[in-house]
Amino acid sequence: MSENVGILESNSFSMKNIGELDPSMQELVRRRSVLGPCYRLFYQRPLHLVRGVGSHVFDADGTDYLDAYNNIPSVGHCNQRVVDAVTHQMSTLNTHTRYVHENILDYAEDLLSTMPDELDNIMFMCSGSEANDLAVRLAQFISGGEGIIVTKEAYHGNTALISGLSPSIGPNVPMSPTMRMIPTPDTYRLETGDIGGWMCDRISEQISDMRRHGIKFAGVLFDGIFSSDGVFPDDAGFLKPVVDLVHREGGLYIADEVQPGFCRTGDAFWGFQRHGIVPDMVTMGKPMANGIPCSGMAVKHQIIDEYARLYPYFNTFAGSPVAMAAAQATLAELREKNLLQHAHDTGAHLKQAIVEASAASGRIGDVRGAGFFIGAEVVVPGATRPDRLTAVKLVELMREHHVLVSLCGPFGNVLKVRPPLVFSEDDVDIFANALERSLNEL
Amino acid sequence: MSENVGILESNSFSMKNIGELDPSMQELVRRRSVLGPCYRLFYQRPLHLVRGVGSHVFDADGTDYLDAYNNIPSVGHCNQRVVDAVTHQMSTLNTHTRYVHENILDYAEDLLSTMPDELDNIMFMCSGSEANDLAVRLAQFISGGEGIIVTKEAYHGNTALISGLSPSIGPNVPMSPTMRMIPTPDTYRLETGDIGGWMCDRISEQISDMRRHGIKFAGVLFDGIFSSDGVFPDDAGFLKPVVDLVHREGGLYIADEVQPGFCRTGDAFWGFQRHGIVPDMVTMGKPMANGIPCSGMAVKHQIIDEYARLYPYFNTFAGSPVAMAAAQATLAELREKNLLQHAHDTGAHLKQAIVEASAASGRIGDVRGAGFFIGAEVVVPGATRPDRLTAVKLVELMREHHVLVSLCGPFGNVLKVRPPLVFSEDDVDIFANALERSLNEL
Repeated sequence: MSENVGILESNSFSMKNIGELDPSMQELVRRRSVLGPCYRLFYQRPLHLVRGVGSHVFDADGTDYLDAYNNIPSVGHCNQRVVDAVTHQMSTLNTHTRYVHENILDYAEDLLSTMPDELDNIMFMCSGSEANDLAVRLAQFISGGEGIIVTKEAYHGNTALISGLSPSIGPNVPMSPTMRMIPTPDTYRLETGDIGGWMCDRISEQISDMRRHGIKFAGVLFDGIFSSDGVFPDDAGFLKPVVDLVHREGGLYIADEVQPGFCRTGDAFWGFQRHGIVPDMVTMGKPMANGIPCSGMAVKHQIIDEYARLYPYFNTFAGSPVAMAAAQATLAELREKNLLQHAHDTGAHLKQAIVEASAASGRIGDVRGAGFFIGAEVVVPGATRPDRLTAVKLVELMREHHVLVSLCGPFGNVLKVRPPLVFSEDDVDIFANALERSLNEL
Repeated sequence: MSENVGILESNSFSMKNIGELDPSMQELVRRRSVLGPCYRLFYQRPLHLVRGVGSHVFDADGTDYLDAYNNIPSVGHCNQRVVDAVTHQMSTLNTHTRYVHENILDYAEDLLSTMPDELDNIMFMCSGSEANDLAVRLAQFISGGEGIIVTKEAYHGNTALISGLSPSIGPNVPMSPTMRMIPTPDTYRLETGDIGGWMCDRISEQISDMRRHGIKFAGVLFDGIFSSDGVFPDDAGFLKPVVDLVHREGGLYIADEVQPGFCRTGDAFWGFQRHGIVPDMVTMGKPMANGIPCSGMAVKHQIIDEYARLYPYFNTFAGSPVAMAAAQATLAELREKNLLQHAHDTGAHLKQAIVEASAASGRIGDVRGAGFFIGAEVVVPGATRPDRLTAVKLVELMREHHVLVSLCGPFGNVLKVRPPLVFSEDDVDIFANALERSLNEL
């Protein structure tokens, strides 16, 4: 079993423990058998959430949980502006892109204004998976190659094509024969001051290996903050030589912004902007419409013009007036509440608070992050050696102290702290307090 | 260019004609350049819809159009119950399937109650494409084969895997090397009283061809009403020998119910039930949540149990409390307004009205359908020869008479009549009147 499936298993409910749950939860968990066994629940004692507001969620008993994990309700659980926009548009009209509608045009223009000029076209889908599925096809079409490079713990989606480029789903999911992986750019353990150069060397090795197998290089698909690899944001700029190398080798650079996009990193609207690069395609999803299914792909017009000569594209639900209204309201909230600056400032406080709250324990070897995307390495004290079992215990203890976080990274030991962007200074205090207590109870 | 791309082109707006549009529409169409050229607009004069209610939509000038085409707003444009359900749930909580929530359990149980007992598990996705993408992987995994058979004008979705099984997207989209097609089961032109036997012969031929190429047969993916092939519902039961053959050959039968499902055919909740068959997997989408992105795959537990031993599956937005609330409200509307019976009765009246309204013209050679899914063959009078150009003109004329329909079938000549299920007896009269006048003006 891969580390990541391991993580999922160990941080998720197992039917073996059903006897330990209270009767009403036992009943709910049993009823889930209609969903089949592909589904997973978080926590040894699953959460039955019934209400959410801002950065807090409440379970059926009324317990208040601080949400430091969920990045979809980016402008807050049950954000009123988004609710109102959806209600209004659903009551007015909801159709598809084969009729003209202002919502998609207004939103497309508005969203593209946040991007470099070269990225001047945008298409809409329902999920990040669908966005990456199309972006990879574009890279293959334009390059004339098949070979895609991702990182070793990457997750990019669940379609057949994208599952084959998502090693972190688990060891049993076959990787595409034409894809290659580079190791996690682990700035904590790799002894290099030049992580970009290190990545370029690894990518060059893999392109050579592709060549040896008669596979033409098509491009790379990278989440620029390397979320599932363990969160590696620093030093901003390290992706610059990577993009240049990819282009020199005739490939395309796809920035998977499903996680770092929409102000998450606090430094820029898009994660790639921190690195000063211009990708060929940018895919986006999760927080885009605060929970209404909506995703997109921004692309240089030269690329999509070429593709469109041969291929049409239609996506039934995507770009609908309702999805676009939800996305537009989310964007308005990001701006009016100045959540980029807030993510920058309060994210820095959260990071500092994690450092301080964990100092005495010696269990957290590295805290890194940008804005509201923070990774904290749970290690054997005094070493960089990952301590996955302790990390799993810590996540469960945090839950007992009513704070939601999760894990990531190739060793399954990195605390993933990725709250809604409305996370407040008070929330930082609650978080730090729960972390300190949890560490003490290990 | 394939017939179907031809249809799309000819029934869609071309930038060459932009000068013929009024200035405000010209402006809107120009602004669409940010979306890139993969998108298409219906009609030579595109529609700018701004409002919808029941089976009617209204353009920016206030013109009332009868919607005889859109199957997503199945319980009516802007259905109040669905709006209320979404507003309520969005205001309460929206998360994902890794926490316990009643909405997904209630809906899953409720929806499975409409199915044969053998189909006892259900999973949720965001789009029909995603549902088919997973179903095909399941068929391939369980059968140990790769070879999928579809019909020659099939459309099953837009992911990389499913595009390769959707010949109707166009001749430039490469079909999967391991897939095979059978011709459209054209009950109007084929001289056979046994269309099921005819299909079995064609399928057997293709399985033999697969074998010759070292490809193991995995199964079939059929839309049971053959929507994009031209709508072939009769005689109900003809798919029985097909399912038996598929099983004898070690394959799985995937029923793509994105179009015939959810009471559309008037005979049964699901299209496959008209045929008295039990598929191995059933995929669904479009009308499921009346426009909120939501799709699903029902499956026999033996199949998903086997798959789940190796593969987990997670879909960020799918099965969320909001999506499930929308789907549950849609299901409640279907039941309480008795839309199955209504589709049966009023669908029959609509079909009869089309026969009568077109009799004098001699232009409609065959009218066939089940419930609110009707296909009408536009032919050269006195012959079965398809008349595509006339069909395109007819669709444009119907639009001038404020009725929305479209085209399908391998020859692009079949009028596709597929209204919201709340289409009324008055709507039937409006439709028949517009059809008669349009035919007269040809």
